[in-house]
Amino acid sequence: MIDVENLKLEELLAIAVRAEMDAKETYARMADSVDNFVLKDRLRFLSAEEEKHRQIFTGILKRKFPNSSVKIPESGEVPLPDVKFDDEMVNISEVLQQAMDAEMAAHEFYAAMRDKAEDEEMKKILDYLSSAEMGHYYLLETEIKAVKYAELFDNYNEMMHVGP
Amino acid sequence: MIDVENLKLEELLAIAVRAEMDAKETYARMADSVDNFVLKDRLRFLSAEEEKHRQIFTGILKRKFPNSSVKIPESGEVPLPDVKFDDEMVNISEVLQQAMDAEMAAHEFYAAMRDKAEDEEMKKILDYLSSAEMGHYYLLETEIKAVKYAELFDNYNEMMHVGP
Repeated sequence: MIDVENLKLEELLAIAVRAEMDAKETYARMADSVDNFVLKDRLRFLSAEEEKHRQIFTGILKRKFPNSSVKIPESGEVPLPDVKFDDEMVNISEVLQQAMDAEMAAHEFYAAMRDKAEDEEMKKILDYLSSAEMGHYYLLETEIKAVKYAELFDNYNEMMHVGP
Repeated sequence: MIDVENLKLEELLAIAVRAEMDAKETYARMADSVDNFVLKDRLRFLSAEEEKHRQIFTGILKRKFPNSSVKIPESGEVPLPDVKFDDEMVNISEVLQQAMDAEMAAHEFYAAMRDKAEDEEMKKILDYLSSAEMGHYYLLETEIKAVKYAELFDNYNEMMHVGP
């Protein structure tokens, strides 16, 4: 996907900033589009997480490359999987699956950057960010199952109100 | 750990109820013990999640085994990894690591129950719960790194306030 080997670290960081900006927007738009309030809340949480990641990447760029002239790429220029959906979100599971693919790609991208970085501080932060995206991947996997089995859960919740 | 093969499904469900009760309490106590407000918030989230799981397991027990005389075991009787800590939480990473082990054990326990269950509905719910614990596992892994590298993040946050 991203040519981690041949791009400079500051270029990779700029790509990561854009990736996080897009991810934040995508989750925010998904959150606006779904009715299920638990899923809405989860998607808002993910959006806020990606905003924190953007801030961290922006911070690294400024701190480690204070004189960099590298520009943050535009949305379409980042070779990472896109999450495509219209605002009706007809097939929520399918959209969540795309988001899972994007998280896995981000996880792998940051792990490759971590391995390339020589600065111990940067390695650690990239290691953290790589783990965080893996966490998102499994959160989304769980939400897909929650959406698929929603009716079953409703049945059990009903039962809860009947019991002692 | 738990003899999934030889115990009856209703006995396994009762063990799961106790496991979730204990997990809820453990995360709540951990949340009370830490100062870091991000980690506190994450631990409260996990505690609320485990409470939801307890409700689901209780619901399954009532619905599928309405005449069951199986008792919910006491805390010490459940053969799942324990999370041990005093309220000072001197070594937060080590406590979070214990919690990761407990999540992985719960993940495996519910997956084994899913494979044993013949009821399609129950299989699906156990599949969801198994995924959810895996999600917690990676959330905790990320928090361990956040705790370990906390000083680095503080540095970057500082830089954030300096930049344009």
